[in-house]
Amino acid sequence: MMRATELIRKKRDGGELSREDFAQLIGGLMRGEVADYQASALLMAIFLRGLNERETADLTEAMLRSGRVLDLSNIRLPKVDKHSTGGVGDKTSLIIAPIAAAGGLAVPMISGRGLGHTGGTLDKLDSIPGFNTRLGIDEFLRVLARTGAALIGQTDDLAPADRTLYALRDVTATVESIPLISASIMSKKLAEGIDALALDVKTGSGAFMKTREQSRALAERMASIGAAHHTRVQALVTDMSQPLGAAVGNALEVIECIETLKGRGPARLLEVSRELTAVMFLLGGIESSMGEAQRRFDRILASGNGLEKFAEIIEAQGGKARIVDDYSLLPAARHQEPFVSRQSGFIAGIEAQTVGFAAMALGAGRERLDSVIDPAVGIVFRKAVGDPIAAGEPICALFWNDGSKLESARALLEQAITIAPERAAPLPVILERIPNDVPGGIS
Amino acid sequence: MMRATELIRKKRDGGELSREDFAQLIGGLMRGEVADYQASALLMAIFLRGLNERETADLTEAMLRSGRVLDLSNIRLPKVDKHSTGGVGDKTSLIIAPIAAAGGLAVPMISGRGLGHTGGTLDKLDSIPGFNTRLGIDEFLRVLARTGAALIGQTDDLAPADRTLYALRDVTATVESIPLISASIMSKKLAEGIDALALDVKTGSGAFMKTREQSRALAERMASIGAAHHTRVQALVTDMSQPLGAAVGNALEVIECIETLKGRGPARLLEVSRELTAVMFLLGGIESSMGEAQRRFDRILASGNGLEKFAEIIEAQGGKARIVDDYSLLPAARHQEPFVSRQSGFIAGIEAQTVGFAAMALGAGRERLDSVIDPAVGIVFRKAVGDPIAAGEPICALFWNDGSKLESARALLEQAITIAPERAAPLPVILERIPNDVPGGIS
Repeated sequence: MMRATELIRKKRDGGELSREDFAQLIGGLMRGEVADYQASALLMAIFLRGLNERETADLTEAMLRSGRVLDLSNIRLPKVDKHSTGGVGDKTSLIIAPIAAAGGLAVPMISGRGLGHTGGTLDKLDSIPGFNTRLGIDEFLRVLARTGAALIGQTDDLAPADRTLYALRDVTATVESIPLISASIMSKKLAEGIDALALDVKTGSGAFMKTREQSRALAERMASIGAAHHTRVQALVTDMSQPLGAAVGNALEVIECIETLKGRGPARLLEVSRELTAVMFLLGGIESSMGEAQRRFDRILASGNGLEKFAEIIEAQGGKARIVDDYSLLPAARHQEPFVSRQSGFIAGIEAQTVGFAAMALGAGRERLDSVIDPAVGIVFRKAVGDPIAAGEPICALFWNDGSKLESARALLEQAITIAPERAAPLPVILERIPNDVPGGIS
Repeated sequence: MMRATELIRKKRDGGELSREDFAQLIGGLMRGEVADYQASALLMAIFLRGLNERETADLTEAMLRSGRVLDLSNIRLPKVDKHSTGGVGDKTSLIIAPIAAAGGLAVPMISGRGLGHTGGTLDKLDSIPGFNTRLGIDEFLRVLARTGAALIGQTDDLAPADRTLYALRDVTATVESIPLISASIMSKKLAEGIDALALDVKTGSGAFMKTREQSRALAERMASIGAAHHTRVQALVTDMSQPLGAAVGNALEVIECIETLKGRGPARLLEVSRELTAVMFLLGGIESSMGEAQRRFDRILASGNGLEKFAEIIEAQGGKARIVDDYSLLPAARHQEPFVSRQSGFIAGIEAQTVGFAAMALGAGRERLDSVIDPAVGIVFRKAVGDPIAAGEPICALFWNDGSKLESARALLEQAITIAPERAAPLPVILERIPNDVPGGIS
């Protein structure tokens, strides 16, 4: 397509691309009329010149239209999903999806795998014996209609342009662009055919976005895409300077989610899960104030309906639902050993990214897309930031099978954990709401 | 190559790439380890972030090393070439190469074809019956050793990375970058194994570089690459706001060159040819001042040795040398008609680019790389800028075979030529020398 060169030139020179321009570029790319080397030059021009809000929404629309958009009109419930930009120990999906479904929402959740120091929802689900994260779209829709929630991996049907573009971005140093990240996430989420979306934009060392400014910008851009697409979106910017919850590692995190659904979850994990679920209830029009929405979460949790719904989802997707009562049915590491403190004081910091790398060293995470992970291994913290600690007392436990990288995992943990003589003021976990006023629910 | 992504990132973020970085990128591209989509992302990053002088020289070196570098050590004469960035009616190579060779230089001239409104040396040579511009490198070297000059088209042997990169630049809107243009030209010229190079950087509407600033920047960058490569380079910035000489069109330009070698050339064409040849004599160490070098040019021209050498080169490359005496052996258009002035006054301007498009409409130029050109057709001006003109008097003649675009050629000429009531001050044709002091010749 001769016009592709013109459009690349337009963006290269700082011009604005129109809705029709994006439709031609993405359509042309999918039809093979725009070459991948043209797409990558365009991606670099976008990386360096940026896209404004209107352009980002139009790019998202073009990517969305590259594939199937789910039609959920036969489901009467409000269709609301949650998406997180990912972090270390970030396991809220397994808590939120059952509680939101138990609370009257339909949650069509299509998730990704983990890469590098971050874990992925799919990898956690895959540690549940029998759980099928590769349902076809029709089966996914049947489970969703029956249980109110279904959790699967990305398929070739939805927003295939995103897969093509992401593969190019990955090898052309054009990943870390707020408009491109926003369009990538939102094209996949909007393809789910949802009414509303709660976003969890992580910020800090363990997150993809390291600074508050970047995280806020990403949240704002995704919210603006939602608005352009007439889909209600609210984003929370949440802390990822330390792992979320105590467990890092797939089966270990599943256990922590079940514990949370049983009312025994760690405070910060519970807080983020509760707030995001409440946003979903509000956006879905199930409740009309955050206070009421939070109380709905609390009631479902206390009643055990969330746990029951989780078991129901596992069952519906072919998994062993009995794991919620019998953790021995989950993969378990052959070895466990404590990681003890060398000094006394207070836990001042547990640096998330380095903990993520420590878990990856044990085999819990992927170094490359084709790495094989061990679902059983990981790290479970016995202490949280702010807790007092005595010399010789365990800070966490390492669960391992392959000892070859145990030393490097220990060295990383040594580096990640800081102990101070005084207790520091606790950091809030929910940092910002974007937009600050929750958009009105379904009326 | 994973490292390619890192190197793209480095340039994307405004960092400097090292000599080794460029060697890896270009080497990897040629070996297929760096994908074309990575190269195009890098090209866009270079386009927008730039390259400094050292980086441009290192990129040039890497491109140069992607292929064969000619070894001219068995030729005892100073090896000096001339390169022009191209324009309308720019035919100096056919005058300079014979005179420089007759004056004691070896001129290994590898040229390109014309595209768009600009003509190419190769197309002009191809209009000479029998002239072979596709000699293999060995035959090229034999002709060079025997006659002191040889003129061929680009081969796959020399700087093949340039061909790969140029093909990508053409379709990814990354052509108009001074570092990339400089590296492209200089890698091909340095691969000729020359001691020195005279550059003709055209400026104005008919040139690739439209402004003096751009032209100066390109000239400076190419001179700095020469310095880094220990090759003496001087660039002249010359005017291309009007066509150079009277003829535009391939065989018509060959005739004009022969006329010039016979001492009957138009003033500005003669001036540019003389100055560039004198720079070559000086850089080659044949003369030690511009005055002496110019006088050498004048002597060779007056003696007829330049014309004789041109016939010798034609003969050596398989062409009919008798064309220098009998122009009827050259392709001739079937139709000729005058383009007359509608008003009286003085020729105030002959806008080069539009004249180039008019000649292209007649079939003299290529719209696309695969267009077929007609060697016979074109335009010959009877008047030059500054000449008085009467209403009804011919300004130029159109030579044509296919009348289908005659009207559009006429309309373009109408647009290109301006007549004013007063004679304007003449514009100099040689505008700048870069660097201003000619580097010393071979001692």
